[in-house]
Amino acid sequence: MRLITFLSDFGTTDTYVGQVKGAIATVAPDAVVVDLTHQVPAQDVRAGAFLLWTAVEAFPPGSVHLAVVDPGVGTARRAVAVRSARGDVFVGPDNGLLPMAIARLGGPQQAIELTNTEFHRMSRSDTFHGRDLFGPVAAYAARGTDVELLGAEAGALASPYELRAPRREVDHWVGQVLHVDGYGNLITSFTQEHLPPRFEVVAGDRRIRGGAASYQAVDTGELLAVIGSSGLLELAVRDGSAALMLGLGRDAPVVVRSFAP
Amino acid sequence: MRLITFLSDFGTTDTYVGQVKGAIATVAPDAVVVDLTHQVPAQDVRAGAFLLWTAVEAFPPGSVHLAVVDPGVGTARRAVAVRSARGDVFVGPDNGLLPMAIARLGGPQQAIELTNTEFHRMSRSDTFHGRDLFGPVAAYAARGTDVELLGAEAGALASPYELRAPRREVDHWVGQVLHVDGYGNLITSFTQEHLPPRFEVVAGDRRIRGGAASYQAVDTGELLAVIGSSGLLELAVRDGSAALMLGLGRDAPVVVRSFAP
Amino acid sequence: MRLITFLSDFGTTDTYVGQVKGAIATVAPDAVVVDLTHQVPAQDVRAGAFLLWTAVEAFPPGSVHLAVVDPGVGTARRAVAVRSARGDVFVGPDNGLLPMAIARLGGPQQAIELTNTEFHRMSRSDTFHGRDLFGPVAAYAARGTDVELLGAEAGALASPYELRAPRREVDHWVGQVLHVDGYGNLITSFTQEHLPPRFEVVAGDRRIRGGAASYQAVDTGELLAVIGSSGLLELAVRDGSAALMLGLGRDAPVVVRSFAP
Repeated sequence: MRLITFLSDFGTTDTYVGQVKGAIATVAPDAVVVDLTHQVPAQDVRAGAFLLWTAVEAFPPGSVHLAVVDPGVGTARRAVAVRSARGDVFVGPDNGLLPMAIARLGGPQQAIELTNTEFHRMSRSDTFHGRDLFGPVAAYAARGTDVELLGAEAGALASPYELRAPRREVDHWVGQVLHVDGYGNLITSFTQEHLPPRFEVVAGDRRIRGGAASYQAVDTGELLAVIGSSGLLELAVRDGSAALMLGLGRDAPVVVRSFAP
Repeated sequence: MRLITFLSDFGTTDTYVGQVKGAIATVAPDAVVVDLTHQVPAQDVRAGAFLLWTAVEAFPPGSVHLAVVDPGVGTARRAVAVRSARGDVFVGPDNGLLPMAIARLGGPQQAIELTNTEFHRMSRSDTFHGRDLFGPVAAYAARGTDVELLGAEAGALASPYELRAPRREVDHWVGQVLHVDGYGNLITSFTQEHLPPRFEVVAGDRRIRGGAASYQAVDTGELLAVIGSSGLLELAVRDGSAALMLGLGRDAPVVVRSFAP
Repeated sequence: MRLITFLSDFGTTDTYVGQVKGAIATVAPDAVVVDLTHQVPAQDVRAGAFLLWTAVEAFPPGSVHLAVVDPGVGTARRAVAVRSARGDVFVGPDNGLLPMAIARLGGPQQAIELTNTEFHRMSRSDTFHGRDLFGPVAAYAARGTDVELLGAEAGALASPYELRAPRREVDHWVGQVLHVDGYGNLITSFTQEHLPPRFEVVAGDRRIRGGAASYQAVDTGELLAVIGSSGLLELAVRDGSAALMLGLGRDAPVVVRSFAP
């Protein structure tokens, strides 16, 4: 039995997440479901795509990744299952939620539109495909059902969201904040390869010396820039919130330039 | 081993939910516990009853449903286990939390008061029966212990909360908001059978055309009325919150009438 | 396979908790992980130590307790695994998070510094030891790997946080609020043994009669003092929040004295 991860914007105050797990258990009683998060901001497909991207690499190859942020449920948007080059299976709406994470695991090898209703819940609503369609399909995938049986070839997926690489200017790079995490850390689009050996970061009205090795490399309450656990440059405040201190959020521009002391 | 679902008002900032799962694991190490929600508003038995009702049908017959919203813990209110006509087992306080959900699964077949302390935790507090009584009993039920062994016949349960059907007036129906979900959708007491072929909904100071097929049947920011995933009519705003737009909450009246354009 | 409990300050809006579980599943696919809470206030080691203390006794002996509140990640603070006298294994940073809970299970029997990198994740970040070090080590411990193999003898642990017993004055005891739970109950440092047969509690500007047997021993909206499920005296308001009513939080002084009516 393959492990199923589960990410959604269903929140934790209702029973929507539980209902999906009930549908999964009905098909695959022994499946293990690991929650990634269910607090993606409501209907924010782009935030969901980023959060899914952060998580999938930590799971064993061959896992099933169920992701549902689905403002278009019940409309013409397609439902898909995608096998990655690494052998993982992604299940969710074809609205841009999945491709960034699939790319992280080697890219898509086969994409199927979920047209075969024999793998769906018997009574299917038009408002809750998480429970009635995606959950059961993920459960069959966890049991080892080949994705080809789930429907017809889907071709290319909708891909509105990508990790945009920083832009090279004459003497600096321009990137952006991709995500603000629960600690208030600002996760930027810079990876190690964009960074000069010695650099500083300009964000909001502040200049931050690059190259910190840990969140405690500065004094309490001070800003630092550190390569975080996803391989992206983060702006953080020791024992505090960089988002609050800088007043910045998603999409805020971030500049990196060489630093000669 | 039967699956155990778990709903409570214990919240997620303390370890109460974890402690109950520890007590379950002590009795039934292989039991799988699926959280429904632990964010029922504190001591709001009625909200808990509704949320439990929304979820149980999605689980395989024979599941154990553990539910604890229990302001009367340590007082004379009874602790019960109830087998439904479908073979599910409900475990919780006899305060109105369980009957609505039991009715959804065919009604009660046998109700037992949990008087047999051999199935309780050895050291039992008077303030946390979730850990010391209900959790262990649910674990025994998951292992297949017959409910009759758990105590004495309980007779009729306390049933203060029911899904009240809308009231028929001369030319319209009067129902109410039963629940506001995390998206701000207003879940009403109307089911498909109360609805004329063409209808409109009056809620707050707004009139809403009925019969939408999905949450995207209208333009962004507009109201719609759609049969949701529990079979109840919901008022929603595309990409927004109906609760905020209408300024309505639980118990607000909702009127449905035929609509002739 | 031993059960793994998991407590952290990672929150539930990001995928950090999920990533740790992915790392665990990579090492021990059949391990069961039970969340205690992931909403310890960010980097509040002392709150984490108390919450871990509340929970561990409810789990079967021999469980693995993974706890990560780790502001010093990537610095010189040590990573440790500790076997308790009862046979449980604690895994986490050596910053005061673990000792209070270990003491509850009989005290430490053997403490190991996690220097053996063969039990760590292959690619290890300096910012996320939960995923890259503690999670994998907990998974090996759950599989039965002896703690001695995980590194070198650690000697004494850092122990800045302890359950401070109330102080005896001439005619009263002075204790404090240790924790405010999600209901607004004030959990104090008094246990049954500090309490005279008849007593009253002074907290904020209020006097509260001791010895309530349940949360409903008084009228709605009134204060009560009851021994709670951890064995500590709690101040509570029936159907309300003592923290809000008294305006008190962690560290607030609480006085107990004999009461002669």
